[in-house]
Amino acid sequence: MNFQSTADEERGLKMVRHSCSHLLAAALRNLWPTTRFGVGPATKDGFYYDVESPVSFTPDHFPQIEEEMQRLKGENLPFQRSEMQIDTAIALMDALNQPYKVELLRLLKEKGSTSVREAIADESMISGETEIVNTVSLYKLGDFVDLCTGPHVNSTGDIPEFKLISIAGAYWRGDSSNPQLQRLYGLCFNTRKDLEHRIWQLDEMKKRDHRRIGKDLKLFSFAEEVGSGLPLWLPRGRVLRDELEHLARQTERRHGYLAVSTPQLTHDSLYFKSRHLPYYASEMYAPMEIDNQKYYLRPMNCPHHHMVFRSDVRSYRDLPLRIAEYGQVYRYEPSGALSGLMRTRGFCQNDAHIYCRFDQAKQEFLRVMQLHSYYYELFGIDKFYMRLSLPDLQKLDKYVDEPDKWRAALSIIVEAMRDSGLPYREAKGEAAFYGPKVDFMIESAVGNEFAISTNQLDFLATETFDLTYTAEDGSQQPIYVIHRAPLGSHERFVAFLIEHYGGAFPTWLSPIQIRLIPISDRHVEYARKVHDQLFDADVLTGTGGLRVDLDDSSERMQKKIRAAQLERVPYMLVVGDKEVSEHTVSVRLRDGRDLGAITIDALLQRVRQEVLEREDISAS
Amino acid sequence: MNFQSTADEERGLKMVRHSCSHLLAAALRNLWPTTRFGVGPATKDGFYYDVESPVSFTPDHFPQIEEEMQRLKGENLPFQRSEMQIDTAIALMDALNQPYKVELLRLLKEKGSTSVREAIADESMISGETEIVNTVSLYKLGDFVDLCTGPHVNSTGDIPEFKLISIAGAYWRGDSSNPQLQRLYGLCFNTRKDLEHRIWQLDEMKKRDHRRIGKDLKLFSFAEEVGSGLPLWLPRGRVLRDELEHLARQTERRHGYLAVSTPQLTHDSLYFKSRHLPYYASEMYAPMEIDNQKYYLRPMNCPHHHMVFRSDVRSYRDLPLRIAEYGQVYRYEPSGALSGLMRTRGFCQNDAHIYCRFDQAKQEFLRVMQLHSYYYELFGIDKFYMRLSLPDLQKLDKYVDEPDKWRAALSIIVEAMRDSGLPYREAKGEAAFYGPKVDFMIESAVGNEFAISTNQLDFLATETFDLTYTAEDGSQQPIYVIHRAPLGSHERFVAFLIEHYGGAFPTWLSPIQIRLIPISDRHVEYARKVHDQLFDADVLTGTGGLRVDLDDSSERMQKKIRAAQLERVPYMLVVGDKEVSEHTVSVRLRDGRDLGAITIDALLQRVRQEVLEREDISAS
Repeated sequence: MNFQSTADEERGLKMVRHSCSHLLAAALRNLWPTTRFGVGPATKDGFYYDVESPVSFTPDHFPQIEEEMQRLKGENLPFQRSEMQIDTAIALMDALNQPYKVELLRLLKEKGSTSVREAIADESMISGETEIVNTVSLYKLGDFVDLCTGPHVNSTGDIPEFKLISIAGAYWRGDSSNPQLQRLYGLCFNTRKDLEHRIWQLDEMKKRDHRRIGKDLKLFSFAEEVGSGLPLWLPRGRVLRDELEHLARQTERRHGYLAVSTPQLTHDSLYFKSRHLPYYASEMYAPMEIDNQKYYLRPMNCPHHHMVFRSDVRSYRDLPLRIAEYGQVYRYEPSGALSGLMRTRGFCQNDAHIYCRFDQAKQEFLRVMQLHSYYYELFGIDKFYMRLSLPDLQKLDKYVDEPDKWRAALSIIVEAMRDSGLPYREAKGEAAFYGPKVDFMIESAVGNEFAISTNQLDFLATETFDLTYTAEDGSQQPIYVIHRAPLGSHERFVAFLIEHYGGAFPTWLSPIQIRLIPISDRHVEYARKVHDQLFDADVLTGTGGLRVDLDDSSERMQKKIRAAQLERVPYMLVVGDKEVSEHTVSVRLRDGRDLGAITIDALLQRVRQEVLEREDISAS
Repeated sequence: MNFQSTADEERGLKMVRHSCSHLLAAALRNLWPTTRFGVGPATKDGFYYDVESPVSFTPDHFPQIEEEMQRLKGENLPFQRSEMQIDTAIALMDALNQPYKVELLRLLKEKGSTSVREAIADESMISGETEIVNTVSLYKLGDFVDLCTGPHVNSTGDIPEFKLISIAGAYWRGDSSNPQLQRLYGLCFNTRKDLEHRIWQLDEMKKRDHRRIGKDLKLFSFAEEVGSGLPLWLPRGRVLRDELEHLARQTERRHGYLAVSTPQLTHDSLYFKSRHLPYYASEMYAPMEIDNQKYYLRPMNCPHHHMVFRSDVRSYRDLPLRIAEYGQVYRYEPSGALSGLMRTRGFCQNDAHIYCRFDQAKQEFLRVMQLHSYYYELFGIDKFYMRLSLPDLQKLDKYVDEPDKWRAALSIIVEAMRDSGLPYREAKGEAAFYGPKVDFMIESAVGNEFAISTNQLDFLATETFDLTYTAEDGSQQPIYVIHRAPLGSHERFVAFLIEHYGGAFPTWLSPIQIRLIPISDRHVEYARKVHDQLFDADVLTGTGGLRVDLDDSSERMQKKIRAAQLERVPYMLVVGDKEVSEHTVSVRLRDGRDLGAITIDALLQRVRQEVLEREDISAS
């Protein structure tokens, strides 16, 4: 998926992919005429179709199905649209022995399109938002007839490159009390090159799975006794925390943030004040009773920061006040939703809250966006966009009923987004309960999209927490609060970085930065001296100095190098007779490059620059 | 209290102080003959007596009481000891109208001395540990007769310098359903100089109360909505956390520790494994139910670190493995026990666990003690000692019934303590349930004693957590675990440091290190330039650089200096016409010293050295 693609291109691809799902269905119908069809929408890289089939599909069936799809494509069959009364359509689908389609049509007739669209994840099948449906449109492709709003390509010859890739189980209408259908996934792209690139991406994503690399590199671990979704950061993984927090500390210091530290355990009155109770209760853990009072684990840091703001009288001169904390929070997740570091029950946010005047809000929001873009450049994240969640102003009861303030906050954010020059999109109905939010979506080097950070402009806290400042004229004025966390949840961001770098972190982030590899026992003493010199070198890192170790095992040199490469150590320093006598080290990089013999000082100069500037040699 | 004092000196002082409590009682009896007496033991700097009096005492009564005490001292009255049958003593005390003494004697007769000694905090009144008491000893001083084991000085003339200092309420036998008595506290020392020093200490302790300074310097805050005992670290207080953690990180890196990060929320099975459940349940919070399972907030970090150890196979070559974490824990405390940062419900430990072989344990324990002594020297803590808690081997069921392992662990610790050359004492019956422990007791600059850090040698975790290593011969061998936290609980250590430094932290720890003070508006621009130069200077601190601010208010210079002194800012840089034209700053220190005008480079050199070496200029 290309974030630079225009909306038109995207719409075109979506139509093509949706047509390809019909092509798949038509092929399945030809091969196994008793196949019953559920839904079959386009996806972000292709399509799927949910089917009930006499066959239990495996990837071994793909060549046969793809061949039939190619045959139908070669016949250049037209996509034929027809409209009919809904009762006629029901009778037709019944005659075709398609009970799932009949069920959808009956639902449509009884409940209207709105609720049916919500029940199935396929907007192509049912269009519009209405309570009453009289007529529906159907598309015919060969012998396959489908309930469908279209649009489609003219004929199968217009469908470009495709490939089936996987099978999964899917409950009909997402309900586990319904029958389980087989979901066949396919890719579809305009060119073979795009298709092959996507196949490479998916293959890389599998290889770069953060759970696998996290285990191989001993970054983190889970233990049954500790509990699901509660990661233990092992020494090498803790390095990532130290370095990212160090980066945030340095950056936020330059941007005028002040760090605080607040407790994870809190009396329930704070959450009644913040309205997390009742609005957010389902994502909080059960309360603990202490001395007959209820205490909660915090799901967010904001209420505590508000209390820090309130700990003193604030004047217009004190604003903006930017309060930061790498803050641990705990949120309830059903065990089925947990997945490695992507979704955990406890995580640490690179959090901060900016307390400002109304006239400062836009500028501060803009600076927050620029901060994101600064970080993305540092991590080589080329593709990202902001997603603005608009409230449905018709349904403000879901949020808080202050449409004027919503509109004011929205216009500040939209202006800041425009001024930033960064790419953005708008989406409806997902705003936080205390204000509009902007999510940052980033794409890893292998094309996987991560929702990484959420920003909000909060006009409600001033009332709920009585956050005000004394203006120049002595009056009390409302505070606007910006919620921001550019590096997002530490756990999820690390999952992203593991995939993004495939575990080969830039030197500044690498758990082990330098490994000494003595060729034989008689070189160990010299290797240890070099090790100590590098360990003691005055290089500012998040862990207090360079991370260097020494492989003094009795393995042969090639095996030691291979081991270091598997551990993604960026610098391997091989020392043998020549290096000992010349006071040098022979430098091998993890990508196989051989820099030859250099002095320790030259090496240190190179590594120091790389670490301090946070360069990525693997990218050079 | 002087840690260098010999045990003999201490015993002598205790006798003198206990005699002084009788002198107080005798004086009270003379002045108010209907006074009824509770208990009156020696304290670490004097004595107290609990009394029921017709008078409601205030400090205004002290001169009158002290005058009577001096008069009795001048009479050189003898302390006369007599022994009698317990029933005779009861009859005597009844005749003297002393119902509290009668109650104690009756208890003594019914329950024996052991349980009565536990019920009152006065070991001088009832000696021995026995179930049956037939005779008791009494002491007579003038008209005052007391149940007392002695010993005492010969006569009141032997009592040296004393002074009454305060009054508090105290429930009879510590039970709030009993009558409240008045507790009169006094000091007693051998010389006037010692007495006056102690008065100065108490006065300083009051001035240096960490709750007061914490508020004045805006270091931390408590909020009702967040809950009792749960501190909010404000930006200036968070600096202390960053600097202490930075110190620990640097130091532990040099000592071969590896940092990890583990969750505060944990499944109960971990605590059944660790035996915190049931042994430690009363100090843990109530469990939270998640998906029908019980989760706890952790009261200690050890079980999580054990899980980190278990995340991999460990060989003899990997040991010792030192796993460190500035780890947040939560322990239940009754609300009445909470006191500022000294006793909180959530605190952060400078924790680590050392996993080693039996033959490494002594050396590792010794290194831990040396680490303590390194820190103490850094903080100018001259007076400290180790307190070894010995288990009562008769009562091993309270701990774990493995006397051989207990003895082996004890001998390792005692040898390490001896080899360290540091002062230590032994105390009975306070060991942790998983091994003997050594507490470090430190004394602040004003003589207040803090129990700051606990160390344990744990021979039980190897069984409960199945912690083993593969020996050279391939066999699985038990792991010994050392629990250590030299900087203790962060919260309590900061309370100590605030008192120790009276809020005037050394430059490296100071929340604001340097303040620019422009004399008038026309000097602000130059001041800002200097500010930026210092802010951007490459000085490694725990917060990423020097902490410098600028007072551009319209106040007069003297007022700005006074404000900076109140905030204990170590460096005040005054800039006026002369400094602007000569590119210098005039340096004032917070203690009033005036260093005159120097260049920015010279200032930076001085401050850099002070910060990097963690020197304390206030002490120079």
